Order: sequence, then structure tokens, then C-alpha cells
Amino acid sequence: MNRIEPRTLKGFRDYLPEIMIPRERCMETARSVFRRYGFAPIDTPTLEYLEILTGKGSEETDRQMYRFTDHGGREVGMRFDLTVPLARFAAQHLQSLGTPFKRYHIAPVWRGESPQAGRFREFIQCDFDTIGTDSVVADIEILTVIDDLMRSLGITRFKIHLNNRQVLSGLLEQLRLSHLSVPILRSLDKLPKLGYEGTVAEMSSSAGITDLQAKAVLRLAESRGSNAEILAALPEITGHQPLALAGIARLQAILHGAEVAGVSLDHLRVDVGIARGLDYYTGVVFETFLDQEPSIGSVCSGGRYDNLADLYTRQHLPGVGASLGLDRLLAALEKLGLLPPGRTPAPVFIPFFDPLHLDDYLAMATAVRGAGIGCELYPEAKKLGQQLKYADSRGFHLALIAGSEELARGIIQVKNLRTKISTTVTYSRDQSTALLSAVEQMLQLSMETLLA
Amino acid sequence: MNRIEPRTLKGFRDYLPEIMIPRERCMETARSVFRRYGFAPIDTPTLEYLEILTGKGSEETDRQMYRFTDHGGREVGMRFDLTVPLARFAAQHLQSLGTPFKRYHIAPVWRGESPQAGRFREFIQCDFDTIGTDSVVADIEILTVIDDLMRSLGITRFKIHLNNRQVLSGLLEQLRLSHLSVPILRSLDKLPKLGYEGTVAEMSSSAGITDLQAKAVLRLAESRGSNAEILAALPEITGHQPLALAGIARLQAILHGAEVAGVSLDHLRVDVGIARGLDYYTGVVFETFLDQEPSIGSVCSGGRYDNLADLYTRQHLPGVGASLGLDRLLAALEKLGLLPPGRTPAPVFIPFFDPLHLDDYLAMATAVRGAGIGCELYPEAKKLGQQLKYADSRGFHLALIAGSEELARGIIQVKNLRTKISTTVTYSRDQSTALLSAVEQMLQLSMETLLA
Repeated sequence: MNRIEPRTLKGFRDYLPEIMIPRERCMETARSVFRRYGFAPIDTPTLEYLEILTGKGSEETDRQMYRFTDHGGREVGMRFDLTVPLARFAAQHLQSLGTPFKRYHIAPVWRGESPQAGRFREFIQCDFDTIGTDSVVADIEILTVIDDLMRSLGITRFKIHLNNRQVLSGLLEQLRLSHLSVPILRSLDKLPKLGYEGTVAEMSSSAGITDLQAKAVLRLAESRGSNAEILAALPEITGHQPLALAGIARLQAILHGAEVAGVSLDHLRVDVGIARGLDYYTGVVFETFLDQEPSIGSVCSGGRYDNLADLYTRQHLPGVGASLGLDRLLAALEKLGLLPPGRTPAPVFIPFFDPLHLDDYLAMATAVRGAGIGCELYPEAKKLGQQLKYADSRGFHLALIAGSEELARGIIQVKNLRTKISTTVTYSRDQSTALLSAVEQMLQLSMETLLA
Repeated sequence: MNRIEPRTLKGFRDYLPEIMIPRERCMETARSVFRRYGFAPIDTPTLEYLEILTGKGSEETDRQMYRFTDHGGREVGMRFDLTVPLARFAAQHLQSLGTPFKRYHIAPVWRGESPQAGRFREFIQCDFDTIGTDSVVADIEILTVIDDLMRSLGITRFKIHLNNRQVLSGLLEQLRLSHLSVPILRSLDKLPKLGYEGTVAEMSSSAGITDLQAKAVLRLAESRGSNAEILAALPEITGHQPLALAGIARLQAILHGAEVAGVSLDHLRVDVGIARGLDYYTGVVFETFLDQEPSIGSVCSGGRYDNLADLYTRQHLPGVGASLGLDRLLAALEKLGLLPPGRTPAPVFIPFFDPLHLDDYLAMATAVRGAGIGCELYPEAKKLGQQLKYADSRGFHLALIAGSEELARGIIQVKNLRTKISTTVTYSRDQSTALLSAVEQMLQLSMETLLA
């Protein structure tokens, strides 16, 4: 027989259980946080009319887009982000759905870019936005959600850097450089990488401004000290330009509101070096860095925009939102030891000794699951050593050992598969209380040890 | 400005919150059930090499497949099901992952079929399988999972119809019709639709057998009575053919095991008319029907196969699995009133009266969320009537009404938005206990009324 070589396309990958289990948990945590604030899920088609997608991102996304002609002769493309589909969705449905509209969208996107370490041609995006309001309440809420997200994922040491594009725009207006804002702000974003002198040079070459002008822009990024100190210094730096002053007041209101909503001020840092190169941001912008893993970059970024969908509708749709970088975050959680290892979502393993006792094993498994604890019964009566080797490779926490002898004596050994310590409890099909409380106790202990 | 018409491709759709909320809940329920039994999540790429996909389904799936040439000149296709990717995945990874391998996979698939009522070109499949074992334990477990799934989704009245292809194969062997099994079994599947005489005619025309032969096959489907009575009648009907006898014994063992594992026998029905046309099934096969919505067809179907991946590997990989029909199930749950309506995942709404009290609203929202209850704060100080209209349209349960007057007096009105009944509780930013307990109580009452 001629076999086909089983392989995946370059730039694509299979998600094996050990990667997929923490991935799903992360997405579930995100969903539950979003819902707690009233964000509702939506989904949009993978394929869109090509005209909906082309020219909406950058030249690069256009070039990387997967596109083809479908069975009906239509030119179609696979979505390369979730923002363009959201704009199309909003234009199509927001008249009937009403505003404010708060949605989250967790879904794959595709970009045929050259595969690099850790970058794939198919990856998940996780976006959340509040659309249809200019209110500062929505800005505050997005920051509160990011803070809640991080803490719910077990991350306690992080900083949300925030800025307001109005401060930047006001300064550029003051310097009469507004017409060059795109190249200037893209250069500003490179400050952490290029350093001060490098950024001056980059601004000069990419925006064609003088070193003096570049240095005037960079005065912004020199503000040091506490949030209050930075905000106090900004009016003078921006020459008291009205838009800049409005932007500073907004930042103050956001910081105050976030604090009232329970966000620790340790997690918020005004950082006027954050520009978020994309030209559609018009208000607050933010990026999130982990104290212990700053090198991976921002794990959650976004900002306020003035008009989401003007390519598709007259309806004026301002909004604010952010995108959680799931892959980066998972990489960071793994480095920080915040991901419990294991390839099984069920913590308890029941070896299968004797086909004559299958009924006992089935009843035990049902009792454990009935207590809300995941449990796997090995399907065949192989040698115990072989079964325990399987259990080890999968990462089970506990094994419930019940050979014919144990069952005859009305007992079960509950074994911690990591410490190899076991305890013996009484058990019968009518009386599983002792078993269940031992399993619960030992499991909690095992999980705590693992995450300690 | 030239605007682009915002529209989706024919056969595709946006999922609005009112559809997406129950959809996500359903998927979450499914995931938690799968995990309870030790099934682990995997994911595979949307795009596969075309040679992996073509010729693996039917001529129809080949014709309907979305395919194109990618940037690197590779012929690629979008997956049309999750079984072919599982076979490829198993061939590629199971040597290292080991068996038994229990996985679930919930992901979209694409088929460019002619759109019909309720059928789309992009839809979610939800598959779970145990691979690498012939054991009856795996068969029992799949049925137990289906039973658990249905009950966890709130469905109590359903029947899992089960059969064993060995019984059918044994009978066809006995009748010397094995070489015609594919057309005969496909015809048998049509029995509920065509009736007895119609199926006889269909078998004669599609398999070219005599009416007498067709009637001999259909004797199977005539067995009536309890599971025990049907199983008792089968040996004689199949002429005591050895494969058929083995199949009957296996069905007995499965029924017994499922009962021991806690499946109510009311939910299991031996139905020798179930054939599952696909020719790769070799053992137990099953379909699941809702007592109150039989017309929507099976909501969860599957069976045992002898060799999952022989197109890609020499490794012999028997398995058993099933596929949950998410769209059908959601349609049924909606008809049965088991889906709470609403377009918001958060049950509590806080109107925004007075910008001077923003801090109070933010603190209230944080207190409610801290108690694990979803809560949305309206972002702007519009008229109360307008805000409550918004709350109604979104389907919130409760509103926390706190105007300047209430806040000055240290009280809040908790209003049930459906019954319009409200209660007044004391509240201050330091003391939210009374508020939280009123919210919890009224919310529970409101949910109960809704689902009653």
C-alpha cells in the first residue's frame, strides 16, 4: 500500500495536549473575566470577501494574506486579524444591536509570513472592545479588565504602561510636525530598542526632521518619577497645547477611576514613550509588561480609536479595546512556572488489574467523577508497571490501586504518583466516602506542592 | 468617500451574542465533561497539504473542499472534518504520545456545499475518541460520556440507540452478501425515512439484491421489545453466525458496563436498524435522539473502527469515538426552552446617573464582580429611561439604581428588570454586604423563574 507522509505545512503546527491544556485554561480564564464585565462573545467567518480585507491592514498584511477564488468565482481571503472583521461586523449589525456594544472575540487568524522562531502562520487572537462611546468609563474599564485578566492568570507582578495619543498629537501640533505623526510615532515606539541617540537618528531619517525637532519630541520620554510627577511635568513639555492638556486630564481621570475600581497603582505606569504605531489610535494607548519577563514584550496592548468602521459605514463608532497576546503570555507563564505540567486534564488514574473486577473499576471511576474530579480508567488489564509508566508519562497525580486482593478486603490504596507515598482507605461500591475524602485531600496537597 | 458594502459570503454567518453565548456555554460544558474522563484537547491546522485531505472523505467532500495554491506554491486545502486531521495527527505523533490516546477536538471545518436552511459552509465539529485499544472499556466509556454530556446540558429525556456492525456483518456473511455491505447498510440507514417496503425497494435497486434477500436483512430491524428481548432474538435471526454472536456478546457487555457506570438503562436502546453508512465502522455504532425532538435527528453519533490511520502509517490504530452535533443540539435546546435568553453574559446592570458619582458606580461594580457576579456599568450619564431600555434589550436581570439622592441616604434600589419589583438595601463603599446578599438572592430567583 502506498502511504501518504503524515506532515503539517511549514509555519503550521499541531497542538499536542501538553500545549493545548494550558492554552484552553488561559482562554477560559480570559472568557470568564470578559463576561464578568459584560463583554459578550461574537464570532465572524474565517473567509471574507477580499475587498473587505485588502488595504485594511498594512502592505505587509495584504502580501501575507491567504486568498483564493471560491467555488462560486468569488475572490475571498482568510482573515489576518480580528479588527477588520469587527469593523465590518459593526457596520453591518450595530444599528440593530445598539451601543455601547462590548464584545470579545477569541479566534484564529492567518498570515503567510516567513516562519520564525515562535511565530506561526496560524495563531489565536483574543480581542475585547467597547464600541460606540467616548466615555472615560470605557477606558477605565478596559484597564480594569487587563488588571483582572493578569491576576486571574496568576500573574501578580506586571505593569500596564499607558499614554494618551492626544498628548503626542498636541506636542506635534505645537512643534508643527502633525503631518509627520505616523513616521515620528513609529520611531518613538522603537525607543526602548534603539535608545535615545538611535531614536533621534531614526526620526531624522524616517520622518526627515531635524535632530533638534526629534529631541523636542523625545523630551516627552525623558519625564521621570511617579505617575503624578510625570503628569505634572507634561503641560510645560507640551507647551500647554490644548489637545495635550485635555489628554493629560484624561490620563488623570483614568488613573483615578482605575484605582477606585480596585486596580493597584503599582500596576499602572504613565509612560509617554508608548505610541502604538498604528495610526488609528486617537486617545489612550497601553501596553502590558511582566516585571519578571520584560524581554517578551507587551502581553496585552490596545487603545482608543475615534472611528472603527468608516470604510464600511457612515455610523460614527468610537471605541476602546485591547488584544491579549496568548502565545507570548503562555510562554511567559511557562517560564515563570505558573503552568502545571501534564498531558492529561484528569488528575486521577485507575489501573485495570483484573477483567473480573471491571464493574468495580467502573463504579470507582463514576464515584470519583461524581465528586467533580477527573478520572481515567486504563482500558486493558496490562501489567501494573506498564500502566503506571503510562500514568507517569501522562502526568496523573494519583492512582487508585485496587487489585483483587484489595477489593476482597474492601480497601483501596490511594497513591501519590509523584511522591510515591500511598494511603489505604476502606471502600465498597455502596460506601465511597472514605475514598473520596482521601482523594480530595491528597490531590489538593499534590497540586499545592506542584505550584509551590 | 467610497464605502465598501459590509456583507458576509454566501453560506457564512456572523455569530451575534445571542447565538454565541449559548454556543460557548455548550462547548464549555462539553469540554468539562470530556476532561472528567481524561480526554485531552488537541488542535490541528486549518490548512493541510491537499494530498492529506483528498480522497479521504467522499467524492462530495472532495468536490466541496476549499483548496488553493499557497504563497510557496503548495497545494493546500481547508479541513472538511476532524477525522482526517486526527488520522494524520495520530500517524505523526502517536508513537511518541503513546496509547491509549484519548482526545477531544472542537474546531471549525469548511465545506463549500450549497447552502440550505440551517446549513453553513463553516461549522463547528466536536469530536472525542479513544485510540489504540480494542477494549470494551473504551466502548462503555464513550457511551457514558454521551450520557453525561446530555445530562450536563440539561437534557434528561433522550435515547442512545446502539448496534454492533459485527451483527450486521455476520448476518451479511451468513446471507453471502458481504461484498455488497456498503450499499446495503446505506439503505438500511434510510429505514426510518423510507419505511419497510421503501427500504426493500432501495436495497434492491442500490445493491442489486432480490426482495427476498432484502427482507432477510430487514428481519434484524423487526426485533421488538426490551434490550434483553432484542438481544435474545438476534442469534436465531443471524443464523448463529460466529461474528454476529461475538457482536451480540459485546453489546451485552457494553450495556452491563454502562449501567454499572451509572447510565440509566432508560437512555440505552439496542437498535439493530442503526448502520452508520460510513464503511470504516467495524464494531459498536450509536446515535442519540432526543425524546421531545426526534425530528432533528441524531445529536451525537459515532462508533468503533478497526484502523484509523492506515493511509498514513503502518501502526495499527483501532479506536472508538463520537461527534457531538453542536448546531442541532443548540436548535433543540432552544426549542425545549433550555437556553436562557439574553445578549449579555453579565446579569447585573448599573445605570449611570451622575458623573459626580462615578467613583460610587465604579466601586459598586467592583464589589459585585468581586462576589463572582458579572456586572456592567453604563458608560454615560444618559436619561434613566434610555439606559433601562438598553438594559432590557440586552436581557440583564437586575439593575442597581443609585441616584444622587439614594447615595446621599446610603441606600441602593435593587430592581428585577423582568418583574419590575425592587427592594431597597443599605450601601456604602465600605459596607456592601447587604447589597451583595440582595443581589445574590434576587438573581437566583430570577434565574429560577426563567428556567422554570
